[in-house]
Amino acid sequence: MRLMTSSDKPENPETAGAPTGVAAQDWATAAADPQYRAAVVDLLGALAYGELAAFERLAEDAKLAPTLADKAELAKMASAEFHHFERLRNRLTEIGAEPAAAMDPFVAALESFHKQTAPSDWLEGLVKAYVGDSIASDFYREVAARLDTDTRELVLAVLDDTGHAEFAVEKVRAAIDADPRVGGRLALWARRLMGEALSQSQRVVADRDALSTMLVGGVADGFDLAEVGRMFTRITEAHTKRMAALGLAA
Amino acid sequence: MRLMTSSDKPENPETAGAPTGVAAQDWATAAADPQYRAAVVDLLGALAYGELAAFERLAEDAKLAPTLADKAELAKMASAEFHHFERLRNRLTEIGAEPAAAMDPFVAALESFHKQTAPSDWLEGLVKAYVGDSIASDFYREVAARLDTDTRELVLAVLDDTGHAEFAVEKVRAAIDADPRVGGRLALWARRLMGEALSQSQRVVADRDALSTMLVGGVADGFDLAEVGRMFTRITEAHTKRMAALGLAA
Repeated sequence: MRLMTSSDKPENPETAGAPTGVAAQDWATAAADPQYRAAVVDLLGALAYGELAAFERLAEDAKLAPTLADKAELAKMASAEFHHFERLRNRLTEIGAEPAAAMDPFVAALESFHKQTAPSDWLEGLVKAYVGDSIASDFYREVAARLDTDTRELVLAVLDDTGHAEFAVEKVRAAIDADPRVGGRLALWARRLMGEALSQSQRVVADRDALSTMLVGGVADGFDLAEVGRMFTRITEAHTKRMAALGLAA
Repeated sequence: MRLMTSSDKPENPETAGAPTGVAAQDWATAAADPQYRAAVVDLLGALAYGELAAFERLAEDAKLAPTLADKAELAKMASAEFHHFERLRNRLTEIGAEPAAAMDPFVAALESFHKQTAPSDWLEGLVKAYVGDSIASDFYREVAARLDTDTRELVLAVLDDTGHAEFAVEKVRAAIDADPRVGGRLALWARRLMGEALSQSQRVVADRDALSTMLVGGVADGFDLAEVGRMFTRITEAHTKRMAALGLAA
């Protein structure tokens, strides 16, 4: 299935133009299908816990900041993630789901990811925030196209403006300019982040049937692993381009 | 000098009724005095760094939370502290002070405080958040009475609604009900927090002449240590009452 944001490739006529199916329905209509409802609860739970975990990690990284101004910048990002978390949690409550129960299935995978990728210094923390935020944005956009209008609006709203990108890119570029060897180390680090993110995502996809089915286009009778693979490929390609733009060979 | 909030004691006619002196002036008028200006930059710098440090500590404590809902509650408090930090930092910029330079003199004392009082579990973290927030509020209120109208408005605005109190009180009471021995341990902990807070505050008072002079009533030619002592006594008494209300002998 083609995605709304893949504007760099030719349109697939199947999904070009006005949204159809679930994407043309509001929540009340779409949620009549219990499998769709379960998938959205899963999705919001995963996103909510992702934001809460991002809050914690950014707050942790703030400790590594070389200056008070940098510390404040990381704290600001952390606070922005918290507000995204709040919106997602409130939405879960609104649709009658228990937020903690919805988040719970995703705790282990995210904890694993963060445990495997604890930054050892300030620059690694920045690259992680940037890579993490970018992958999350790509994923949100991939999935937005498959959502009912109400859920899509929320998901796109929590996408915006945590401000990671600009700040991280500027600091990382300056560090590489000052010492080009830093680039090699951070490129390895970014590869490790991406590898770990993919490995944890695949674990989640394998565990959560309703969510996975939705991710690959709402085929109710089982899901297409090849399409999941293509989604991961698109996200990886976007990551590679961003790393190159940052001066890091990905 | 009597304080606006000491409503439990008879009014001192000297300061009862309408504010006089600096407290009746706006920032533009009051800041014409370079010593007052320096004191306010110190004060805003100390408060701003206090909020940023509180953000970091609450985010750290969120890791100790026994449930996702508790974690979210701590993250919410941390985020509220960050927004207070933002307001104080923006005000420093507005009045032409460099925020990092204004905060810098207070970093060592606050780091020391937090290093000496790292909570060893979730309940200690909650008691610390509650005690810390309450002492900070008492201090803000003490100082507000001595400020020009514009600065006072800001200081009173950042006082409110971080929501520590209600949440912490409820959780700590429930823990003591469940196991009364917890009360003894937490009472000792609260005493240690207060002792460490006083010791670090006295260090700051001794180091920062302009700020200390303002705290004891704007006597420009040296400051009255006895009055500083009385302020600390008032704050300690309020702490003792709060601890008793919480079921902790202070």
